[in-house]
Formats: sequence, structure tokens, C-alpha cells
Amino acid sequence: MAESISGRPMLKLYYTPNSCAVATHLALEHSGSAYQVHKLDFSKGEQRSPEYLAVNPKGRVPALITEHGVLTENPAILTYLAQRFPAAKMMPLDDLWQFAQAQAFNSYLASTVHVAHAHRYRGARWSDDAAAIESMRIKVPQTMKACFNQIENDFFKGPFVLGDDYSVCDMYLFTITQWLEADEVDVNWFPKVAAHRRWMLANPVVQKVLQSQ
Amino acid sequence: MAESISGRPMLKLYYTPNSCAVATHLALEHSGSAYQVHKLDFSKGEQRSPEYLAVNPKGRVPALITEHGVLTENPAILTYLAQRFPAAKMMPLDDLWQFAQAQAFNSYLASTVHVAHAHRYRGARWSDDAAAIESMRIKVPQTMKACFNQIENDFFKGPFVLGDDYSVCDMYLFTITQWLEADEVDVNWFPKVAAHRRWMLANPVVQKVLQSQ
Repeated sequence: MAESISGRPMLKLYYTPNSCAVATHLALEHSGSAYQVHKLDFSKGEQRSPEYLAVNPKGRVPALITEHGVLTENPAILTYLAQRFPAAKMMPLDDLWQFAQAQAFNSYLASTVHVAHAHRYRGARWSDDAAAIESMRIKVPQTMKACFNQIENDFFKGPFVLGDDYSVCDMYLFTITQWLEADEVDVNWFPKVAAHRRWMLANPVVQKVLQSQ
Repeated sequence: MAESISGRPMLKLYYTPNSCAVATHLALEHSGSAYQVHKLDFSKGEQRSPEYLAVNPKGRVPALITEHGVLTENPAILTYLAQRFPAAKMMPLDDLWQFAQAQAFNSYLASTVHVAHAHRYRGARWSDDAAAIESMRIKVPQTMKACFNQIENDFFKGPFVLGDDYSVCDMYLFTITQWLEADEVDVNWFPKVAAHRRWMLANPVVQKVLQSQ
């Protein structure tokens, strides 16, 4: 593992552009810590190479390499980065209830919203039939709209996900919001989410990460 | 909210039997805290009733009612209970890295394994076509086998998920392992997971929860 200027090993993120690893990348950048990135080309199947499977046997991104080993799963990584770099104030670490709400939001994004989206490109995970995979693809606009209706109406407090304080939940929500256009969902149907996306796109940290990918 | 003997409001769990809320129920019982339960009959669509949607607009279980409000999503609830009742030692709370690994395991169960299983009963979430839904159902044994191969070979440390210490990860894994027979997967293909299931089934707390559901 490479060392940072401080002499501590640098964190290293395996990612592919426009994937959910954007959220992890944003948290790393926001943390202020030195880190490395390794881009995988999914079009070449690099996530399934023996070299990468030795790093992360799941064959997916994000994977964060630390001095202790590899950490996977966005909700776990985002919380880990928030806890490891408390000065960056990326989660409500001192309030058990608010911390739990942040975790619930991230878990919903991972296990419901990202899963809904995945039926556009990854239907072969759940069916071997081409017509079935196509039928999943055409339902994605409906399921993603339903998810974002719920986010807009039930979970988003404003101006940030958790209310007044910016958090990893904003980074993760923004990451998935960026997929809406491809999912044939108009972000402007959700005024609070749309305003949030505009704020994120104007944020220098977000711009730096998107441009670097 | 009802009060416990201590005068603090009692936690209340909304669940349906044999769902992923078994994990939450196990953690509540293991915590030693007083709690109430409310059983929903999914065969009557009670999870979609206006009364329940007012509690949990997601219309799913588990939902944990606390003095602060409702908390959803198993990974978030399990961590919350472990943090709220630290004396019950349900997670490695004092080690940032081990805590992150526990969270990653729970997140994998929620967003990959539970999702794989859900394609048996809940295909209508992702397709409107009956033949497609059937094609998802028949692939579930294959996807669940792949998930449990990965758990057995890559994640399960033994004798418990995280190694020597029992945790909420064991409760959550056991909950999903109970679904394998219906998913046409033989738990004995995974010797470590099979031994773990036998230990769990012999555990008095587990027996009490299963019998009470």
C-alpha cells in the first residue's frame, strides 16, 4: 500500500465511472484524507478479472482498501469514512437516533433504489430469459419514479437529506439521482431532489470528483 | 407508547412471521430490553393498510417504533439496537474496522441475498409480465446457492459470522438461512453455515422468538 505524506498508508478506492462508487469517491474527497483510485473498465469485464476478484471476491464496486484489508458495500463504507474522519462531519455521529436514520436512508438506497435501477442493466442476475430481462428493463422508469416519490415526500427533510447538515446521505442520493435521466425519469418531478441535485452539481468537491472520473 | 417497568417507553416491533424481521426480533430479545410486538398478516395485505402506512410508508417490515419515531431497514435497526444496548454485546462497537465489517456483512444480506430471495415471491416488483415473473422464480435456487457459496467461502469466519463473538450478523444470517429450503437450496452444501444454523436452532433465545411468532 502506498503511503501518504503523513506516513499512514493511503486508502485506495476501486471504482468505475458513474457507478454507485461515485458516492464513496465523494466521501473520500470530502474527508480531506489522501487517497488513491483505481478505475476498472466494466466494458472489458475488469471487475471479473482474477486480479480484481482477489481484491474483492464480489466482483463489484466500490471496494475500499485500507491498512486492515478490503471493505465493500456502500452503506458500510460511507459510515466507516464518516467515523474515521469525524472532523469532516459527514454523519451525525454523536446522536444514536440521527445516526440510525442516516443509516436507514443509505440502506434504502442500497437495497431498494439501487436494486430498482439495476433491473435496467443487470436483469441477467435474476433471469436467464431475454424477454423477461426486457420486461424488467421497461418497468424501471415506474419503479424509480415510485422510489423518488417516496424520497421526496417521506424521507428528504431539506435542504439536505437529513435536514440542515450535509452528510454522506447527500452524496449517495446525488449519485443515484444522476441515473434518473437514463432511467427515463425527470428529476423535476421531485422539486426538493431537483434543487438538491443542482446544489450538488455546483459544489466544488462534487465537480472535482466528477471531472476526475 | 406503552411504558416498560423502568418507566421508559417500550420499543415496538412490527413484523410478519418468517420475514427478515425475525432478525430484528432476535436482536430485541437478546438485548434484554422490554419490547412489544405487532404481527401483520401479509396474506390479508395488512402491510398496505392505511393504518400501517401511517406508521411505515414503505409498507414493509421490520419497523421499529421508538420514543423518537419509526426506524426501518434491517441493517440500520440491527446496528441501532446493538448501539442502544451495548451491554448485550451484539456488535464490535469499540473497533471501527470490525464494526465496518459487520455492517458490510449485513448490507450484503440486505441488498444482495435478500434481493435474490425476493425474486421468488416478489417478482411483480420488477416486471408486469407473468412469464417473466416465473422466469425469475425458477432462477432463485441458482442465485441463492451462489450467495451462500460466497458467504461460506469468503465471509463466514466461524464459529460465528465475525469469528469468536456472536453478533447481530448471526441473527440476520440465520434468518435468511431459514429460507433456503423453500428456495430449493440444501443448507448442507455449506458446512459452516449448516453448523451455524444448528447452533442457532438450539439457542434458547432463538427458540423463544420462533415459538412466539
